[in-house]
Amino acid sequence: MTPNQLRWDPLPMPERPTDFIEGMTTMACNASCAVHLYAANRSMETRFLYDADAELLLVPQAGRLELATEMGRLQLEPQEIAVIPRGVRFQVRLLDAQARGYVCENFGAALKLPDLGVIGSNGLANPRDFCTPVAAYEDREGDFELVARFQGNLWSARIGHSPLDVVAWHGNHAPYKYDLRRFNTIGSISYDHPDPSIFLVLQSVSDTPGVDTIDFVVFPPRILVAQNTFRPPWYHRNVASEFMGLIHGAYDAKAEGFVPGGASLHNCMSAHGPDADTFAKASAADTSRPDYLTETMAFMFESCDVFRPTTFALETAQLQEDYFRCWQNLGKHFDPARP
Amino acid sequence: MTPNQLRWDPLPMPERPTDFIEGMTTMACNASCAVHLYAANRSMETRFLYDADAELLLVPQAGRLELATEMGRLQLEPQEIAVIPRGVRFQVRLLDAQARGYVCENFGAALKLPDLGVIGSNGLANPRDFCTPVAAYEDREGDFELVARFQGNLWSARIGHSPLDVVAWHGNHAPYKYDLRRFNTIGSISYDHPDPSIFLVLQSVSDTPGVDTIDFVVFPPRILVAQNTFRPPWYHRNVASEFMGLIHGAYDAKAEGFVPGGASLHNCMSAHGPDADTFAKASAADTSRPDYLTETMAFMFESCDVFRPTTFALETAQLQEDYFRCWQNLGKHFDPARP
Amino acid sequence: MTPNQLRWDPLPMPERPTDFIEGMTTMACNASCAVHLYAANRSMETRFLYDADAELLLVPQAGRLELATEMGRLQLEPQEIAVIPRGVRFQVRLLDAQARGYVCENFGAALKLPDLGVIGSNGLANPRDFCTPVAAYEDREGDFELVARFQGNLWSARIGHSPLDVVAWHGNHAPYKYDLRRFNTIGSISYDHPDPSIFLVLQSVSDTPGVDTIDFVVFPPRILVAQNTFRPPWYHRNVASEFMGLIHGAYDAKAEGFVPGGASLHNCMSAHGPDADTFAKASAADTSRPDYLTETMAFMFESCDVFRPTTFALETAQLQEDYFRCWQNLGKHFDPARP
Amino acid sequence: MTPNQLRWDPLPMPERPTDFIEGMTTMACNASCAVHLYAANRSMETRFLYDADAELLLVPQAGRLELATEMGRLQLEPQEIAVIPRGVRFQVRLLDAQARGYVCENFGAALKLPDLGVIGSNGLANPRDFCTPVAAYEDREGDFELVARFQGNLWSARIGHSPLDVVAWHGNHAPYKYDLRRFNTIGSISYDHPDPSIFLVLQSVSDTPGVDTIDFVVFPPRILVAQNTFRPPWYHRNVASEFMGLIHGAYDAKAEGFVPGGASLHNCMSAHGPDADTFAKASAADTSRPDYLTETMAFMFESCDVFRPTTFALETAQLQEDYFRCWQNLGKHFDPARP
Amino acid sequence: MTPNQLRWDPLPMPERPTDFIEGMTTMACNASCAVHLYAANRSMETRFLYDADAELLLVPQAGRLELATEMGRLQLEPQEIAVIPRGVRFQVRLLDAQARGYVCENFGAALKLPDLGVIGSNGLANPRDFCTPVAAYEDREGDFELVARFQGNLWSARIGHSPLDVVAWHGNHAPYKYDLRRFNTIGSISYDHPDPSIFLVLQSVSDTPGVDTIDFVVFPPRILVAQNTFRPPWYHRNVASEFMGLIHGAYDAKAEGFVPGGASLHNCMSAHGPDADTFAKASAADTSRPDYLTETMAFMFESCDVFRPTTFALETAQLQEDYFRCWQNLGKHFDPARP
Amino acid sequence: MTPNQLRWDPLPMPERPTDFIEGMTTMACNASCAVHLYAANRSMETRFLYDADAELLLVPQAGRLELATEMGRLQLEPQEIAVIPRGVRFQVRLLDAQARGYVCENFGAALKLPDLGVIGSNGLANPRDFCTPVAAYEDREGDFELVARFQGNLWSARIGHSPLDVVAWHGNHAPYKYDLRRFNTIGSISYDHPDPSIFLVLQSVSDTPGVDTIDFVVFPPRILVAQNTFRPPWYHRNVASEFMGLIHGAYDAKAEGFVPGGASLHNCMSAHGPDADTFAKASAADTSRPDYLTETMAFMFESCDVFRPTTFALETAQLQEDYFRCWQNLGKHFDPARP
Repeated sequence: MTPNQLRWDPLPMPERPTDFIEGMTTMACNASCAVHLYAANRSMETRFLYDADAELLLVPQAGRLELATEMGRLQLEPQEIAVIPRGVRFQVRLLDAQARGYVCENFGAALKLPDLGVIGSNGLANPRDFCTPVAAYEDREGDFELVARFQGNLWSARIGHSPLDVVAWHGNHAPYKYDLRRFNTIGSISYDHPDPSIFLVLQSVSDTPGVDTIDFVVFPPRILVAQNTFRPPWYHRNVASEFMGLIHGAYDAKAEGFVPGGASLHNCMSAHGPDADTFAKASAADTSRPDYLTETMAFMFESCDVFRPTTFALETAQLQEDYFRCWQNLGKHFDPARP
Repeated sequence: MTPNQLRWDPLPMPERPTDFIEGMTTMACNASCAVHLYAANRSMETRFLYDADAELLLVPQAGRLELATEMGRLQLEPQEIAVIPRGVRFQVRLLDAQARGYVCENFGAALKLPDLGVIGSNGLANPRDFCTPVAAYEDREGDFELVARFQGNLWSARIGHSPLDVVAWHGNHAPYKYDLRRFNTIGSISYDHPDPSIFLVLQSVSDTPGVDTIDFVVFPPRILVAQNTFRPPWYHRNVASEFMGLIHGAYDAKAEGFVPGGASLHNCMSAHGPDADTFAKASAADTSRPDYLTETMAFMFESCDVFRPTTFALETAQLQEDYFRCWQNLGKHFDPARP
Repeated sequence: MTPNQLRWDPLPMPERPTDFIEGMTTMACNASCAVHLYAANRSMETRFLYDADAELLLVPQAGRLELATEMGRLQLEPQEIAVIPRGVRFQVRLLDAQARGYVCENFGAALKLPDLGVIGSNGLANPRDFCTPVAAYEDREGDFELVARFQGNLWSARIGHSPLDVVAWHGNHAPYKYDLRRFNTIGSISYDHPDPSIFLVLQSVSDTPGVDTIDFVVFPPRILVAQNTFRPPWYHRNVASEFMGLIHGAYDAKAEGFVPGGASLHNCMSAHGPDADTFAKASAADTSRPDYLTETMAFMFESCDVFRPTTFALETAQLQEDYFRCWQNLGKHFDPARP
Repeated sequence: MTPNQLRWDPLPMPERPTDFIEGMTTMACNASCAVHLYAANRSMETRFLYDADAELLLVPQAGRLELATEMGRLQLEPQEIAVIPRGVRFQVRLLDAQARGYVCENFGAALKLPDLGVIGSNGLANPRDFCTPVAAYEDREGDFELVARFQGNLWSARIGHSPLDVVAWHGNHAPYKYDLRRFNTIGSISYDHPDPSIFLVLQSVSDTPGVDTIDFVVFPPRILVAQNTFRPPWYHRNVASEFMGLIHGAYDAKAEGFVPGGASLHNCMSAHGPDADTFAKASAADTSRPDYLTETMAFMFESCDVFRPTTFALETAQLQEDYFRCWQNLGKHFDPARP
Repeated sequence: MTPNQLRWDPLPMPERPTDFIEGMTTMACNASCAVHLYAANRSMETRFLYDADAELLLVPQAGRLELATEMGRLQLEPQEIAVIPRGVRFQVRLLDAQARGYVCENFGAALKLPDLGVIGSNGLANPRDFCTPVAAYEDREGDFELVARFQGNLWSARIGHSPLDVVAWHGNHAPYKYDLRRFNTIGSISYDHPDPSIFLVLQSVSDTPGVDTIDFVVFPPRILVAQNTFRPPWYHRNVASEFMGLIHGAYDAKAEGFVPGGASLHNCMSAHGPDADTFAKASAADTSRPDYLTETMAFMFESCDVFRPTTFALETAQLQEDYFRCWQNLGKHFDPARP
Repeated sequence: MTPNQLRWDPLPMPERPTDFIEGMTTMACNASCAVHLYAANRSMETRFLYDADAELLLVPQAGRLELATEMGRLQLEPQEIAVIPRGVRFQVRLLDAQARGYVCENFGAALKLPDLGVIGSNGLANPRDFCTPVAAYEDREGDFELVARFQGNLWSARIGHSPLDVVAWHGNHAPYKYDLRRFNTIGSISYDHPDPSIFLVLQSVSDTPGVDTIDFVVFPPRILVAQNTFRPPWYHRNVASEFMGLIHGAYDAKAEGFVPGGASLHNCMSAHGPDADTFAKASAADTSRPDYLTETMAFMFESCDVFRPTTFALETAQLQEDYFRCWQNLGKHFDPARP
């Protein structure tokens, strides 16, 4: 099996006490980013983390979190995301018994909102919906550990006080969160099926205009009204590499096998698209009426670099060995005699 | 009355024999463009035209046209548009008894398709729907007139042969046409109401990124599904100046008074929006169901420069003296006690 | 006398009741901006103003003002400045018996902070010192007048309620103020004398990188320590045109004749610099010790276009006919025999 | 010890005959540059060097040098720097008995002067102070060695004549030198403390605007006059990685341990700043009077990439094992009850 | 006659004493530049000139000149050109009994060498062939006149000393000269006929990439070797407006009527090309052998704006009323039956 | 021997049945591209290839090919080139008994035509000479192999039908071919010798303006007329690395040893140029007459990255061990006494 089309079941929740740092597992990486999954059941209590290599995009799928940072505290629940800037010290505290989710470690340019171009001054993720914490500090002494991610390794140092002791700050190198349910989805209101770029939330741009090292894309609730059109995500083979996850509900291009907490990977120039059941159903659909997609929230870390799966990802029991079978029933429909 | 909010009835069809050149009337102009209306009832027979100052965007509202140009012939009907590049010689021939429409004389950069940005590789006006003529020539001698528009005036010269004698050509300084009914309309499929820039067909860009000297925008048939949203064009006061026309059907922000062939002008920083009847109806609408707008095709020449109406435009009998009354019944709805 | 080097005494305060609109006098203009002086002794009471052509930069020299705008209220005192964006409706209310100052009507790109380049992330006018008003509205009916500046003229309309009735807003097309005394002045701390661009507060950029249509520059309190250097502004002849005013104290290049409320104009390629007394004094100064300049606040509207003075400006009694004499005593100091 | 905060004593002078090539030791490198130290006691006599991979920035700390190049000869003394372009052949000749210094091997874009932005047309390192050699050649035959640095290795070839035989040349791919004492230092003349970017001499730019692969920065003699301000370099934790050296005198952020010829390294996101003694002294200083810093010349090779120290750098006897102790006496000063 | 295709004989030499200022006549202008002719027979003796509006490009056709400027002196002969920057004071002194030539007064960006793109690091006008004067000054007192061109008018002031008293200077706002005979002509060495842009010497760029407000183009001596190609300048109709002059010899597209000192104008979108005789001769030529064009030097001021001829230019006796006849003998050569 | 100056004889034709995939041998690679040679004697029959890493530039030297692709079929002969975009599936079919040539595997931006700058709207490789295939498909079932190049390896999968089954397509990610004999060669028609960039056919641009990761350059038939000039390619030492091949005839800088099908490599900053015989002949040539170079077609893959030769390239019997001797007879010609 080539590492081109892979799919995984969700990570099981840990059995032993496990905090956010212990609970992270790397699934894939490239020059632009690393993709991790986490599954934890206790707060980071006497330790703090910062990532000297990258900013961190957290996408919780189960369990609410408090991110205590140098600039203040963010409370986060599934269907919300948060970004911790490079070098900022923080602690992940669990607000529920268990927590699971996805992390994108972005080595490139800081994530930003895309320019909307002809879409205008509003649409997609609106700037006013991004929340930066109210400043907060703790003046706490004790026997703490400061963990640094630096050049791909973790380094540890002892520290006699909480590093979350920033009494005041100004600037814009600050953490933030966003509720994906506020995404103002734009799409066809006539015919045809736009590219998934229309679901772009945040992007890390390269120096080449039009090429992003990472795109964070969501497939949110939406109303499909395009007429005379195959409405699910179409089949494609493209230059980007796509790591996908599901946060909530079901994904409209896969009838089964892709559940919340699961993940899939389709690398550069590897063709993919709806499974055979989805194809059959959508091909027979009546497009003169709208489809209201409601219970769904999938996402994609899309990169201009090929994702190299880790040994763990290729050997874990969560890997679905028969993923490729979802397209086996797609038959030949071409008849040269038919106009 | 300030020249900020004006509306006109359609030009009447001419009574005497009138070709395209005779039938043009200038309504407004600025440093970026001039806006003309035309109403004609015969072909240009022994004369030819070229515009040394500008390219010409033709928007027919009634009557089919043949545009015989140096590069070949285009046939055009209402709801289609055509662009004749600066300096190209052509002849307008009527394919019906009468013809009426709008012309934008663009002094700035050649009109082009916008970059679609996050919309992706398809959407709005697709490049594949623009048609350039098959090369054609005529080897015809006679007593002809060549009319040049040069520095805002018309100049005439005698010529002993048809200038449409180009036997072969290559390059891209060529006329083209587009059928507005092929516009792939994009809009909200969740909530809220995007800017009208999402209806952009062609733009003439200035040297300032984000500022166009002319935007050609259409309000095409579309399906409105945004929920919890006031669906008609909203009220606004903006930096652009808007010259509007209606080609077909009705316009969804004006219940009456704006008919096919009519025109309106809203200049820079002059507030405008739906009339009172449209407001009342849309405010009471049920947005859990789609609205299928079908019989409609309005358009806008939008400019970053203020349009100065001509004396003709300010004194013609087609000017609607009571246009401003369409907003008089808009009442006060604010109640500070209501959350 | 060529309109190249002009200087004016301050406008006298009005004797009759005069509000901000009545009290404005145009001194000079070009394609980029117009420069006005104002002298008023009463508030705009039942009328409101907006400028459809330009944003307005207000520089009060005497008398505190309240600017009541659609987005809220700003209180302004001398040595503070305010900017009202294009199209925003507002009312100028006097907080003192009299008010006098300068207005730059900016037809170009909105004023913005300059990129600081090698100066880094702090310095000059810091973004955190710019204040946008808290949202405020008034729900007031009555017999009011709305005055519009549109295409260089004033237009008036009756309106039955205060237009300052915006209950909530978001966006960034909002008025703001800035206290010039917070300017973080940067200069030589070794030798030599930087260009006055180092005093740049706000700029209106053209499409040509490095060329601003308007620069708003201040000459604030500062500590001069450059050694072996002529410390006052040096003599120069440059491509920009400079309209200057004095808000407070004395200006270090002119020993007399330039008082608070006064103004001067030096147009493109017209040489100018310190008067003869300033030259003599600075040439003899000891630069091994610092000069602490404290009581001073002059400013400049600098434009890439030549300022054309109005007839008023050329004929007013405030024009100083003998301005050119301030340089008459500058003698010849060159001796080819001296190394 | 993490390779994040390191400091070294100066390299000892060599005991055996050692030329520039033999005397170079690599301390750290990344994708943008390599940093070397050199200590030599004889001229390159019959060999010549060129670097096919990079341009070379030489920063002598002790001993004068003559750089004989294809384009002519440069004489260099401490507090001067020189740049040899990529591929240019040269010979380092000692003008004193011993020589020691720093070399930055720049793999990226050629070093250039920064755009000064609002600083204007003069300031920092002025172009007129950079010296290119007068053309010179030698017509010398013999048994010579040509050493090439190519893909990180040294390669040697025999050559029968001096390669410094260029009789005439034109173009701008030429060596140059600059005297750091001519740096026109700019800084605060009011309050606050600008970023060290204000000390930028030369930069190697990346394709990302605002991000340099290498900045060559000096901390030159200067007059500190900013009031109500902590005047030494402040504490910071930033995205750049900083390799620092001291050429002359003392550095104002370190009371001891950092001597001429020494070096320090602070990598990405590793907090650093003045030592405890400097902090205590500056916190108690009277800022109403200037500080004249005279005997000092430190510099920094600052990179957007993390510096990886070599094995030599981590194991050499010159490494100061107790460097981190310089901050141990920094106490806690925060009292929430104090305003 | 439309002002689209005009040609003039040379200005006659003046009969009365006439210096450079008196001897200038304006032929055409637009927003980018003005084109003047001059014919003089004595030096500017006690007066000096500067142009506050524009830089001046001088193209002498007869008579050597000395340009005494603030930065030094340039000696100029026909087939050389000189540029005096905006605002620089200078004096034109005749080195021969009479002088005649062309002046382009450039209101736009300073003239610069074009980027050569794929042509590489050498070609066309090489930077090393441009000569800036050695600094020179005169310490001369007397009763002088300083003439300023400012906003299109001439202004005069008395001055008690020569303004050419600049003892030393640095910077790059300096006059320069160039010998057109050093132009390194590039052209086809296979087949086909490149655009005249390949003869570009200097350009004044607009903010629109690819659009120059003024191009200064020469048609220099060159060797024509393109095979199977019509070698003279071809027929064209283009967006630029072309003011042409002849400095020396004959021009290869016009067999007669265009002599040294003469001028022609072809405005935007006005078709033009070789006269009928040139067409006939070139159509019959053998292109397997080279043509060595030697005695020729024509030039063009090409602008993106239409040139408006002055009343003088339209009414002068030098205007050739029958210019258009040069194309009258061009016959019809098309035969649809011929492949 | 350093890997700086290498030359190879042509690959021998294979003896056993060998298709295009089996017949490829990698010669050199870097971060921008890999260079392969191929020698084949049978078509790919039941297998298909796509390259997920790069687009492929094919330069046949012997034997005609049919490239059957998803978008249609291209027939290719020596002196023509073809480009297959990244990810496009294709099959190489031989139209002659044997085939040999060069392949550049371009990992960077897609190859494109250069902007011509001052050369104008025509010249070098004209867009109209590039041919895209007419759409074609095959509806063929069988037991096939699909070979993917992915991350530098070849991967194989079984497939039950021909992947060349694309019935219709639109877009511009399509294969194309170009006949190098249509190159419109531009060069000096006066004196001097332009850079080889003037022979640029296609470029792969980096994010740094002016720096290409790959330039595909040809040395085509041309007429040399530059006078007083050394006409062959001159001696140089430059930052680019040059992999060269010869398709047809002889190359004008090498009298012998470089034959069609052969290759050479000159890496960054390694001096090279004509061999001694060519030098002697050209130095004595009469440049008052043209040289008509006819039977020649060499090319270069030029990269901004150093080419690392493979072990095969360094050890193959085709490597010419004595290549460096071609310059051994170049003597010393300098005499300081001669002007």
